[in-house]
Amino acid sequence: MGMTMTQKILAAHAGLPSVKAGQLIRANLDMVLGNDVTTPVAIKEFEANGFDKVFDKDKISIVLDHFTPNKDIKSAEHCKFCREFAGKHDVTNFYDVGEMGIEHALLPEKGLVAPGEAVIGADSHTCTYGALGAFSTGVGSTDMAAGMASGQAWFKVPSAIKFNLTGKPQKWVSGKDVILHIIGMIGVDGALYQSMEFVGEGLKYLSMDDRLAMANMAIEAGGKNGIFMVDDVTKEYLKDKVSRPYTVYEPDEDAEYERVYDIDLSQIKLTVAFPHLPENTRTIDEVGEVKIDQCVIGSCTNGRIGDLRAAAKVFEGRHIASHVRAIIIPATQKIYRQAMKEGLFDIFMDAGCVISTPTCGPCLGGHMGILAKGERAIATTNRNFVGRMGHPESEVYLSGPAVAAASAVKGYIASPEEL
Amino acid sequence: MGMTMTQKILAAHAGLPSVKAGQLIRANLDMVLGNDVTTPVAIKEFEANGFDKVFDKDKISIVLDHFTPNKDIKSAEHCKFCREFAGKHDVTNFYDVGEMGIEHALLPEKGLVAPGEAVIGADSHTCTYGALGAFSTGVGSTDMAAGMASGQAWFKVPSAIKFNLTGKPQKWVSGKDVILHIIGMIGVDGALYQSMEFVGEGLKYLSMDDRLAMANMAIEAGGKNGIFMVDDVTKEYLKDKVSRPYTVYEPDEDAEYERVYDIDLSQIKLTVAFPHLPENTRTIDEVGEVKIDQCVIGSCTNGRIGDLRAAAKVFEGRHIASHVRAIIIPATQKIYRQAMKEGLFDIFMDAGCVISTPTCGPCLGGHMGILAKGERAIATTNRNFVGRMGHPESEVYLSGPAVAAASAVKGYIASPEEL
Repeated sequence: MGMTMTQKILAAHAGLPSVKAGQLIRANLDMVLGNDVTTPVAIKEFEANGFDKVFDKDKISIVLDHFTPNKDIKSAEHCKFCREFAGKHDVTNFYDVGEMGIEHALLPEKGLVAPGEAVIGADSHTCTYGALGAFSTGVGSTDMAAGMASGQAWFKVPSAIKFNLTGKPQKWVSGKDVILHIIGMIGVDGALYQSMEFVGEGLKYLSMDDRLAMANMAIEAGGKNGIFMVDDVTKEYLKDKVSRPYTVYEPDEDAEYERVYDIDLSQIKLTVAFPHLPENTRTIDEVGEVKIDQCVIGSCTNGRIGDLRAAAKVFEGRHIASHVRAIIIPATQKIYRQAMKEGLFDIFMDAGCVISTPTCGPCLGGHMGILAKGERAIATTNRNFVGRMGHPESEVYLSGPAVAAASAVKGYIASPEEL
Repeated sequence: MGMTMTQKILAAHAGLPSVKAGQLIRANLDMVLGNDVTTPVAIKEFEANGFDKVFDKDKISIVLDHFTPNKDIKSAEHCKFCREFAGKHDVTNFYDVGEMGIEHALLPEKGLVAPGEAVIGADSHTCTYGALGAFSTGVGSTDMAAGMASGQAWFKVPSAIKFNLTGKPQKWVSGKDVILHIIGMIGVDGALYQSMEFVGEGLKYLSMDDRLAMANMAIEAGGKNGIFMVDDVTKEYLKDKVSRPYTVYEPDEDAEYERVYDIDLSQIKLTVAFPHLPENTRTIDEVGEVKIDQCVIGSCTNGRIGDLRAAAKVFEGRHIASHVRAIIIPATQKIYRQAMKEGLFDIFMDAGCVISTPTCGPCLGGHMGILAKGERAIATTNRNFVGRMGHPESEVYLSGPAVAAASAVKGYIASPEEL
């Protein structure tokens, strides 16, 4: 029996000729990631277990992105703790306020992940890097601690689901709509501990920003990881970012997939996930009138330049509804500058939006746009659980950037086609 | 006995031919201001006292600037409460996320204060508008409530101190240095319940941004208000902002001043206030080596375009020290856009700074750059009380924008001349 993309990467990193679903392996890691929420816990574990050095100072990334610039004393203490650890161990990829961005946008941008590599991160959306053909997955802080010390992690080799993509998406439809459609179809546990492998001729119509958004949300279907076949789009993206050699793994002809879904991208409509689960999806024509108070465009899912461009196309020459606050959060400093340079900030501000310095911010109820009781947000973020963006009686509706922008303009959830 | 500028304004607003220090008067108000921290308390008072309408919907300003975009559920609830009140009473000057800025930068920018007017605000730095030749002072939320209902406030007419300014400030010396110098000289209670009246031929060398910073900090010397003689600089500033008629009040020849200080601006050095009082000033050559962790350039004191330009002059072609975070907070959306347009953001980001959306933020320990235990900030803000920017064992050093920027570059408190 052949192997999936994920299985091939895991076999190579375990030093084994082959692996199969369910097998327990110990894999070497190319990168161990943490943020300001999870790293302090990992550091405590690291030190409590008597470790005194990291396995490779170049293969650890610590990104202070969640509650930064610090929202309160507690988050300031956490960041200080991370900063001291990074200094002590001379961690190469330590990103503080001023250099940072949201971890899952920053690592690909900095070329810190390449195809065929294995990455763990103490953040559930670490699965993002599957967009580059890497194996990457979220772990707990204890695994991060062990990873920082040993450069290895234990995995149960996942079984897999194949998503065979065909066709070209319609105007305004983005990777976010595709992944929301898929999660709506298979449910939030539809890929539990499985690899979601994306292949097919439709791939060529998906930009890297689309793919990053899709892989990012594999965890919202319960997936162990999401992974895309490497193609010319991937290679073009990597050209100015990764100079080290990397290996492209393709699934064997006879790789075992527990299920195969054929997805015609041309049939996917703009999609919104209603509270309080990403699987509660409705196509835009089924939404009805849902008045919103806030629009958030950002996050590790949809805070990239392609997302901001899509939003700007909608906002251009328009103004948000008077009862709406619209918060734009470029995911990294580089994206921030690019958007500024392209004049997108002028469009956003003419439309009545504010621009935040890069941060995870409101996505996880951190800061920078928390909701009061009874308030509703449309957001390009990845989770709409109860209280995710603030008060337990607030609501989050997930969408791509075009719908989020159109909704801010209309004041209720809307398609850009309605403007 | 003649009257001071302040006394003339108060007499006019009380409908009296003259007033004298110590007299209790009831004055009509041209503007009543509140923010997201103080307005909710004022609204509760307003409603508890059975008021059901505001005296003049055009003469109330509510600015959501302190904890916005909302840092947590509590601040979101407060903003929602303000929003609903503003909607119910059709408050003209309600500024929400997207339109807003720090109140004391926003009101002058919007032409909401003119010379000779009387303003109260439920925020201690309401004294800022004295820069325009207005009487303005901070009050409690109860006074704000009464002001919103009646359009009037009771005052004890203040006695006054005259600051007779002469000479031209040296390079890099700003209004902030002048006011820190004055507070250092007279102490934090040096002008207790008095008017600080600024006159003299040196005025012409002080930009409106300089004057706004100086009037802003009158309260840090205990002053009831700070007020500047209106001159061509003032009139030029007002030209495109205020179209309604206004009255310029000059002090009578025989106005009574309890003290007169002659201040030669050319002799003032760059000045820093050490923890934990604004009166703990040292000139830059007396500072010694004070290592800093964070630099904050912003606030109602020094977040204006002139301040950002001064900081950019220092940052241009340089990078902040590796252990420093530098946070730039343009005080309003308009200032943000102007700074962006002038290329200042590029300079700031090349230097390693981050740019925040307008907010009071860290100045009052709100959010957007809170300090951990033992951390030190140099800040262009107005107060360095114990725990003001975060942990009770953190420290805040106050300076003007040039020193703040130079310090970020050096990593310790420094003059731009040292670079």
